[in-house]
Amino acid sequence: DDYIAKRYRCLYFEESGCVNNGRRRSTGATPSEEMNGTGNLMDFLDEPFPDVSTYEDFHTIDWLREKSRDTDRHRKITTKSKESYWELIKSLLDAWSGWVVMLLIGMLTGTLAGVIDLAVDWMTDLKEGVCLSAFYYSHEQCCWTSNETTFDDRDKCPQWQKWAELMTGHSEGAGAYVLNYFLYVLWALLFSFLAVSLVRVFAPYACGSGIPEIKTILSGFIIRGYLGKWTLLIKTVTLVLAVSSGLSLGKEGPLVHVACCCGNLFCSLFSKYSKNEGKRREVLSAAAAAGVSVAFGAPIGGVLFSLEEVSYYFPLKTLWRSFFAALVAAFTLRAINPFGNSRLVLFYVEYHTPWYMAELVPFILLGVFGGLWGTLFIRGNIAWCRRRKTTLLGKYPVLEVIVITGITAVLAFPNPYTRRSTSELISELFNDCGALESSQLCDYVNNPNMSRPVDDIPDRPAGPGVYSALWQLALALIFKIVITIFTFGMKIPSGLFIPSMAVGAIAGRIVGIAVEQMAYHHHDWIIFKNWCRPGADCVTPGLYAMVGAAACLGGVTRMTVSLVVIMFELTGGLEYIVPLMAAAVTSKWVADAFGKEGIYESHIQLNGYPYLDVRDEFTHRTLATDVMRPRRSEPPLAVLTQDSTTVEDVETLIKDTDYNGFPVVVSRESERLIGFVQRRELTVAIKTARQKQDGVVSSSVVYFTEDNPQVAEACDPQPLKLRRILNLSPFTVTDHTPMETVVDIFRKLGLRQCLVTRSGRLLGIITKKDVLRHMAQMMNQDPESIMFN
Amino acid sequence: DDYIAKRYRCLYFEESGCVNNGRRRSTGATPSEEMNGTGNLMDFLDEPFPDVSTYEDFHTIDWLREKSRDTDRHRKITTKSKESYWELIKSLLDAWSGWVVMLLIGMLTGTLAGVIDLAVDWMTDLKEGVCLSAFYYSHEQCCWTSNETTFDDRDKCPQWQKWAELMTGHSEGAGAYVLNYFLYVLWALLFSFLAVSLVRVFAPYACGSGIPEIKTILSGFIIRGYLGKWTLLIKTVTLVLAVSSGLSLGKEGPLVHVACCCGNLFCSLFSKYSKNEGKRREVLSAAAAAGVSVAFGAPIGGVLFSLEEVSYYFPLKTLWRSFFAALVAAFTLRAINPFGNSRLVLFYVEYHTPWYMAELVPFILLGVFGGLWGTLFIRGNIAWCRRRKTTLLGKYPVLEVIVITGITAVLAFPNPYTRRSTSELISELFNDCGALESSQLCDYVNNPNMSRPVDDIPDRPAGPGVYSALWQLALALIFKIVITIFTFGMKIPSGLFIPSMAVGAIAGRIVGIAVEQMAYHHHDWIIFKNWCRPGADCVTPGLYAMVGAAACLGGVTRMTVSLVVIMFELTGGLEYIVPLMAAAVTSKWVADAFGKEGIYESHIQLNGYPYLDVRDEFTHRTLATDVMRPRRSEPPLAVLTQDSTTVEDVETLIKDTDYNGFPVVVSRESERLIGFVQRRELTVAIKTARQKQDGVVSSSVVYFTEDNPQVAEACDPQPLKLRRILNLSPFTVTDHTPMETVVDIFRKLGLRQCLVTRSGRLLGIITKKDVLRHMAQMMNQDPESIMFN
Repeated sequence: DDYIAKRYRCLYFEESGCVNNGRRRSTGATPSEEMNGTGNLMDFLDEPFPDVSTYEDFHTIDWLREKSRDTDRHRKITTKSKESYWELIKSLLDAWSGWVVMLLIGMLTGTLAGVIDLAVDWMTDLKEGVCLSAFYYSHEQCCWTSNETTFDDRDKCPQWQKWAELMTGHSEGAGAYVLNYFLYVLWALLFSFLAVSLVRVFAPYACGSGIPEIKTILSGFIIRGYLGKWTLLIKTVTLVLAVSSGLSLGKEGPLVHVACCCGNLFCSLFSKYSKNEGKRREVLSAAAAAGVSVAFGAPIGGVLFSLEEVSYYFPLKTLWRSFFAALVAAFTLRAINPFGNSRLVLFYVEYHTPWYMAELVPFILLGVFGGLWGTLFIRGNIAWCRRRKTTLLGKYPVLEVIVITGITAVLAFPNPYTRRSTSELISELFNDCGALESSQLCDYVNNPNMSRPVDDIPDRPAGPGVYSALWQLALALIFKIVITIFTFGMKIPSGLFIPSMAVGAIAGRIVGIAVEQMAYHHHDWIIFKNWCRPGADCVTPGLYAMVGAAACLGGVTRMTVSLVVIMFELTGGLEYIVPLMAAAVTSKWVADAFGKEGIYESHIQLNGYPYLDVRDEFTHRTLATDVMRPRRSEPPLAVLTQDSTTVEDVETLIKDTDYNGFPVVVSRESERLIGFVQRRELTVAIKTARQKQDGVVSSSVVYFTEDNPQVAEACDPQPLKLRRILNLSPFTVTDHTPMETVVDIFRKLGLRQCLVTRSGRLLGIITKKDVLRHMAQMMNQDPESIMFN
Repeated sequence: DDYIAKRYRCLYFEESGCVNNGRRRSTGATPSEEMNGTGNLMDFLDEPFPDVSTYEDFHTIDWLREKSRDTDRHRKITTKSKESYWELIKSLLDAWSGWVVMLLIGMLTGTLAGVIDLAVDWMTDLKEGVCLSAFYYSHEQCCWTSNETTFDDRDKCPQWQKWAELMTGHSEGAGAYVLNYFLYVLWALLFSFLAVSLVRVFAPYACGSGIPEIKTILSGFIIRGYLGKWTLLIKTVTLVLAVSSGLSLGKEGPLVHVACCCGNLFCSLFSKYSKNEGKRREVLSAAAAAGVSVAFGAPIGGVLFSLEEVSYYFPLKTLWRSFFAALVAAFTLRAINPFGNSRLVLFYVEYHTPWYMAELVPFILLGVFGGLWGTLFIRGNIAWCRRRKTTLLGKYPVLEVIVITGITAVLAFPNPYTRRSTSELISELFNDCGALESSQLCDYVNNPNMSRPVDDIPDRPAGPGVYSALWQLALALIFKIVITIFTFGMKIPSGLFIPSMAVGAIAGRIVGIAVEQMAYHHHDWIIFKNWCRPGADCVTPGLYAMVGAAACLGGVTRMTVSLVVIMFELTGGLEYIVPLMAAAVTSKWVADAFGKEGIYESHIQLNGYPYLDVRDEFTHRTLATDVMRPRRSEPPLAVLTQDSTTVEDVETLIKDTDYNGFPVVVSRESERLIGFVQRRELTVAIKTARQKQDGVVSSSVVYFTEDNPQVAEACDPQPLKLRRILNLSPFTVTDHTPMETVVDIFRKLGLRQCLVTRSGRLLGIITKKDVLRHMAQMMNQDPESIMFN
């Protein structure tokens, strides 16, 4: 599979060290490298970093270097801006470009989210029927525009016809049911087949939720094309198809990926961002916030999600810009108004009753359930994904999608709670039962003597509709739990926010109704006595659904603050923060007890991405000397000397190894480090020198010293001076530095490699990969795990 | 002045370098140092960091070292926990102690905030009169409990008597007015005199807002006693007095200080936090969030404030804990219910009308006003504070407070908008005019034909009350602007959130009423045509007040996201985020154009605290070699050699210099660095060795080598082996490292000092102070500024 192969290339390429341990070298210069090679040496020296492609695909970036490049750029612009008005204007435009990019990202993300919402609405309803007055209307839009419907019958209007009615003229009866059933499954299969085919053929990177990969990219890894235009287009289209097919997946994660693609797209408009991988990642962090902002209509939650869950380097400037992008996106979405209710949020709810302390017990129980669900889901899903990777299953992604869609559709249709789209289901479960609610869940026994305002309904005994709804919900819960484990990770865009929330919302609503009925029938029990008198409104089952949803989402993703804030933005009141937080904390603690990693980290590990998690505490007593290479048994470090290596030696070294760079020492005897030279720059410099500079031959000596080399004899070949490409400030630690400090340095400074010295002598090198490998070993995981094979 | 002298001690003590440049040495060992010195050598060697006092007052901490100490501690507990059940329980308790501390902080902060609110309410009203039924009731409480008041007359009840009425029996007339006036001023003077005296006598650190100092402490500076119990007590009491005295100051900043004192107090319960300055600062960050949370009733805003404005090192774990502390604090405050309305927030507002795009113009104008106000306030206040420092003014803090209070009270009494407390004023300005509002600001001409729901009042022409209110507001605006500049920075607790918001709210309300009346009288103008028909409710002056308050607060503090979130939590709706953000952004940009620093940074600079701002971009082309010491003209670096320094040499070095530590090199000739030794540990080790270890005399050689030294002759004195106190992993950079990288490293890793090498040879040292001094020089500020004198 090309996709998997691509993902795993990183494991061959990502060897930025310079220890000759017999690994195969990379496949030679890429086209862009060739092009650079033909450039002018002087240009090259003036502009030491000619373009962004100084990083190869599947390599990690050097944050410190990116930052210093940006400072150089900024310095140049500031200096120039004093020269003329035109340059001043250019420098102002440059300073504003960040805000412009944010504005564009917000607008495009909001628009795409609106379009996706509208398309999903329409196509989901298409599985059941069609609007005769205008085929492009969804069920709801169709009946809105109709004049013939009353408020009570607002779901039924003559313009909207189910397939069986349209084809046979009968809307009732077994025949119509079977026909509708058949067409529902058929449409689902068609949508998912289209989705998986598009992904396979056009953009393999468009599959999955994308968040693990985006986390990895933001931490400084290069995956070319992952955020490309093509991925953007295909992911948007296939996301609509996948969600419409009725599979147990959501659009939230993929929307973050779509937003990041938008971010990447607009980065290419400004050289400030397109040519600097560090600055680009600041934009992408903000784009991720915009993605969550439109997914839930929660701008603040989006920013905190980006901060807590996705981003790696998040300076304050980015916080502010993320907020701007998230707001613009949310308002663009509101202008499009896909839900037709001027609301920003996906599930708008308003509760009228406060909660009581005693209710914390069921809330915490829901938290425990959420934690257990998180553990079950992560373990099950990772086991299944590993199976997919290692067995024949992975070879037939299209078949897998078709089979899962078939099973989902066949099982989903008979149950009204699984037949409809998952977000509609969640919305209904969150809702409080008002007087006008026609749902089965609100089928309470009415007391005709009671006349109360519309929105303030006291507790009542449950009617038969509620009890049958409870059974159907229980079945839906089991179905969702099982099918979601198999769905997430297939080769179509799939988010897990919505399915996780659905699991929690179903469980929560069941618990909520149970508590409500218990309180109604046993209001003299000591725990209910104080707050549940007959005729009072004391339990809100919708709140339980929301708390359950938060708990389950928290168990799977281990989000905390951003989760509570997103939920807070849905309800818009501080009132319910305590229940939400109690559930979220419990769920996180329960889930953490079974394994520290959330679903995204698990997928990052499963795929072997070089991600250095800021949250992993490294507490072992190892030292830099235990991690650095070469190990004792290995050949010595491949180094250059400052004034005794010939061009031929360098070329041999480049040919024989595949390291990203080489340390330069004073001499092989003293081993005193003077700098570090990038492989790429060395290759280009030698090639250019050989072409342009007279007298540089294989036996020319390469000089990294500051002073002009003294050519001893006239007949000696012309020396090659390369001090300009030498990095004179390589990062060093001593061999006695504790690894916890080294890990901290790698994390905080975003290093690519670090040299190890003792008393000024070069001893070895530690790359980011070495650090990750060591951390994995120390965590008692299988050191030969999939990560480093 | 002892206070100022204390503040400036840092400038003598903070010399962690080791270049002998003739500065006077520190005043010798502190008592705790003496005590350590008498300890057992073996104990010392087992426990290399015996207590927290390894840092002296006014020194900076080494974050990396604190972190590694915590990891050591954690490792020890984990190892021990496997030994017995008791140890396991202890380790679990240790793991939970963080949450316990947060809970305690939240509860105490919430309680203190509630008590302060109640006391301020009562004492503010005491300036005007007293409640006869119970003297400890405030005006509002007094009339609540009265049965004789109707709703319309709810501010007047027989139980509440003004002083003149109580003393002379007349409540009206010139005599009563003058008597009330006189007593108002007298009470104000009494309160402020008490406040300033208490601060002067008992806790000089209790003055000011405290946020600049807390920022500095959180960035890793030690100011002993700043967060002590005594400061906590005095600050709480004097804050009540200062706010009640009617001075133009708020309680928000000091509440953050109070919360941090609580945090520090509870830290001392757990050795995990009390013995580790790094961990302690995590708790303090969370405490700051709790402080803002109770100040505004905005828990999320509080967390973001701590993240954006106050904290330095804010790991994700702290984010979550801060949130917890902020929530607990908010709910404790709600349980105390000081405002008597079950609301969490300080200014609860509910608006009923949406805003229109055209209104963005006045909103942005308010933003410009806010930016200008911010600039004026910062410049004026800093100039005045500098004057206070450098002239005789600083010698008479009590007199200054008395004079300012006198002026404030005399000018404030005649104007009803300045007579009342500033937060009541803001609350009234934010309010929308409902039908039941009795305020002068809501004196609109009623149209008797119109019958509408209570809360939906259409636009109406302003009555005479509104016009007179406008005049009084304009005078109040000028008064507040001028007096606030002189008030902030006096020797009493003083926050500037409330006065800044008041300035903005007054300006905003004036603009709002102007726009409203313009829209009413000229509703046929093209800009109003679409949204302001007669009889419609189209302009909300209260919203303008809120936008103005946000703009002014933003201009002064340069807060952005946290500001908008706090305001969002006040209104509880996403609707008004765009106006708030437009104003906040404009205000920040306008203010930034005149100077990058907010009020807190300006005060940090004024006081010369060693604060390395994460937001300052360092973009100059200097290298480490330009900053390191010794400079060319200075004597060489004071170093120790690994095996040729005698005890006497070391003692001389310690006596002659006052550096925090000394690098150890292989030999003076090779200058190859092997480690760094702390002055403190060296002193203790030598002292202990001389007392306990036989044969260690002045001529003993100090060995830092790994191998046992070979004693050449039997008659040689016993060597002193000190490798155990040698830090073998000192942080180094090369002399060619760009300063922007060095600044980044200092910031992100929280270093105290960094050694500079070239090709493995030790060249010099850079301390945090050197970095700050260099940054100040490069920003073209006066290098001989107050900061480093």
